[in-house]
Amino acid sequence: MGDDARRVITLLTDFGGSDPFVGVMKGVILEINPDAVIVDLYHGTTAHDPSEAAFVLVTSYRYFPKGTIHVAVVDPGVGGPRRPILATCDGHLFVGPDNGLLGPIAERGGPSSVRAITAARYFLQPVSATFHGRDVFAPVAGHLSLGAEPDRFGHPIEDYVRLTLPRPSQRGARSITGEILHVDRFGNLVTNIAGGDLELLASERPMTSLVVQIAGRTAPIVAYYAQVAPGAPGAVIGSADYLEIFVHQGDASRLLRVGRGAELVISSEKAEPGA
Amino acid sequence: MGDDARRVITLLTDFGGSDPFVGVMKGVILEINPDAVIVDLYHGTTAHDPSEAAFVLVTSYRYFPKGTIHVAVVDPGVGGPRRPILATCDGHLFVGPDNGLLGPIAERGGPSSVRAITAARYFLQPVSATFHGRDVFAPVAGHLSLGAEPDRFGHPIEDYVRLTLPRPSQRGARSITGEILHVDRFGNLVTNIAGGDLELLASERPMTSLVVQIAGRTAPIVAYYAQVAPGAPGAVIGSADYLEIFVHQGDASRLLRVGRGAELVISSEKAEPGA
Amino acid sequence: MGDDARRVITLLTDFGGSDPFVGVMKGVILEINPDAVIVDLYHGTTAHDPSEAAFVLVTSYRYFPKGTIHVAVVDPGVGGPRRPILATCDGHLFVGPDNGLLGPIAERGGPSSVRAITAARYFLQPVSATFHGRDVFAPVAGHLSLGAEPDRFGHPIEDYVRLTLPRPSQRGARSITGEILHVDRFGNLVTNIAGGDLELLASERPMTSLVVQIAGRTAPIVAYYAQVAPGAPGAVIGSADYLEIFVHQGDASRLLRVGRGAELVISSEKAEPGA
Repeated sequence: MGDDARRVITLLTDFGGSDPFVGVMKGVILEINPDAVIVDLYHGTTAHDPSEAAFVLVTSYRYFPKGTIHVAVVDPGVGGPRRPILATCDGHLFVGPDNGLLGPIAERGGPSSVRAITAARYFLQPVSATFHGRDVFAPVAGHLSLGAEPDRFGHPIEDYVRLTLPRPSQRGARSITGEILHVDRFGNLVTNIAGGDLELLASERPMTSLVVQIAGRTAPIVAYYAQVAPGAPGAVIGSADYLEIFVHQGDASRLLRVGRGAELVISSEKAEPGA
Repeated sequence: MGDDARRVITLLTDFGGSDPFVGVMKGVILEINPDAVIVDLYHGTTAHDPSEAAFVLVTSYRYFPKGTIHVAVVDPGVGGPRRPILATCDGHLFVGPDNGLLGPIAERGGPSSVRAITAARYFLQPVSATFHGRDVFAPVAGHLSLGAEPDRFGHPIEDYVRLTLPRPSQRGARSITGEILHVDRFGNLVTNIAGGDLELLASERPMTSLVVQIAGRTAPIVAYYAQVAPGAPGAVIGSADYLEIFVHQGDASRLLRVGRGAELVISSEKAEPGA
Repeated sequence: MGDDARRVITLLTDFGGSDPFVGVMKGVILEINPDAVIVDLYHGTTAHDPSEAAFVLVTSYRYFPKGTIHVAVVDPGVGGPRRPILATCDGHLFVGPDNGLLGPIAERGGPSSVRAITAARYFLQPVSATFHGRDVFAPVAGHLSLGAEPDRFGHPIEDYVRLTLPRPSQRGARSITGEILHVDRFGNLVTNIAGGDLELLASERPMTSLVVQIAGRTAPIVAYYAQVAPGAPGAVIGSADYLEIFVHQGDASRLLRVGRGAELVISSEKAEPGA
């Protein structure tokens, strides 16, 4: 991965903004590599649940330079038997607990892309029972950023914890059923339906002939937010290439009263004349 | 602007703390310029409303080094016809949507200080319909930080969107009526009345003879917070050189039940004997 | 302290995430030292109350490299007669208001470790009445990071404001009474009982024979979170080496309805058979 010490390290945690945990992890990294460039990727992910963080990571990492080290800590099993792991994918490195958080990344990375981190000589000693972000993951990232090769940290494993993000299901030729994976800061509802899924459905008609049904409401698929009236719902291919339900200049999650896990159906207008 | 790649880039958005949007913008910038020094200016500005962010930007930018590039993204019109623009002012550079957010900066910058950004070769391709912070503004800032001159990005325009922050009005010789522009983290109410406005009113008497009337309450103008009793309201020339209403060791916004847009009147004690 | 300009500067404030205050402080520092490495330690500490921040600082600083400059701003007396001070401890530097915030650090630093900052030539002029983070503490930190020696900023003082964090009290040989000092993002209740205090109590029996009583509930002391069932309370030696009360995969503060200042008692199971 080269020997330039100015490597980027991103931090993704469920630590919120209400604690010095993130700052302390940065201190540990800078103690090891004073030239590391540390970026907060996201600290507001759902506490104790690795699946939202897994979605954020797999849709965000590619915007960082090759060689970036991504540290992901959503770790309810900290201190127990769950292993720390290191994964490689597309020239990026990932460290975190083996609880599914790195599952989708590892699937992309392919065989032999995941290692159990066992080299305790890289850890901060003594390792606490509650904060491996500080004692294990931050120092491992620091040493990786100095150029230590992944094989120094442990052996490849195949039995890491999979976490398959829910896939949309196509019911007949004319509709797709999906699910809300993430609610963003504006209340936009990010679904698990990718742009490519819609293209299949819309292959014989324009994508704008499709409508979304969610929570008893109907929303048109448009090209950008301002194509619906302020206060009205719509759907758009969002920045992560997934369909998002929005309310123009409003909060879709609050107005439609739906959150993570809610179901939506996409169909052509004629096939199902609306709710 | 020199060719030192360690240029400061600030980020001002309405993305809050609850999303990876800001982190992803940093990834895009570091991919283009690994030596950029990225600073979070503020991400808690009112969503969908550029006027508060415009106030924050115009009162904050001068504390950064000359040559700093300020990226401002409050962008409800993203994906639609609103243009991306680049403004220069006092040796600082500003990029953001043309929706008034950069209006007060552009007014200060004077004629020919604003350009429409049209050079799509600097954008991340494909440009999404919902996240120009990532696809347009971050990469433009990254290239500016490498030394690309503003004229590479587009032609000067004069018809950018103005946004004039509300000015206080002087009623007679003895009072000024102003408005709350911003409520800070402590509940302090930042008004649009500058220190200079007060000096005009107080020219023939000490400034401390003036009183503020707001929400049926009266507050003295003092030199610092601790000059009023804990729990009592006061007013002080704040750090941005605007008058601020506060409650000592308390939250003025909650205790007085006022927020952005509320009116206040400043007068001499004798002229208007209080509410 | 060396003359490498890439010194780490941490920021600890009660500014929350809802204001540009922190960003502006970074601008002031980078104007003075463009090579400073600025880290957010924590901005969510209780407003107007230096005692929680003092606890955070004294338990966090040692994870940063020697020579780090820690800027701490919880400053309800800003603009009044309280002094700005500079403390040294363990090769780290600390700047902040003299209101107890740096008291525990100064106690550790020993005699002559604290100076009143009086060298106004280092301040941003004019110094505002409300924001010494920007006008005093940030520029002092910037100049310290360039290698200016502490004695350039003012004379040693001995009469700085002490702030002694509450100590646990041992009642007889079999129980300790302590207090909650901090509630973290997960609702974990961080107590003032250190690992060493427990070892004294448990010297003749295993630590796991001890139980915690708090808010009418009993919690076992375990080695890590997952040793109790999801939803059940427990206690663990936390990452700062203090005992923490938690609810596995839940929020102890909400479920037990306790917060900062609440009392807890630790005893052996047989001595006090539970609440």
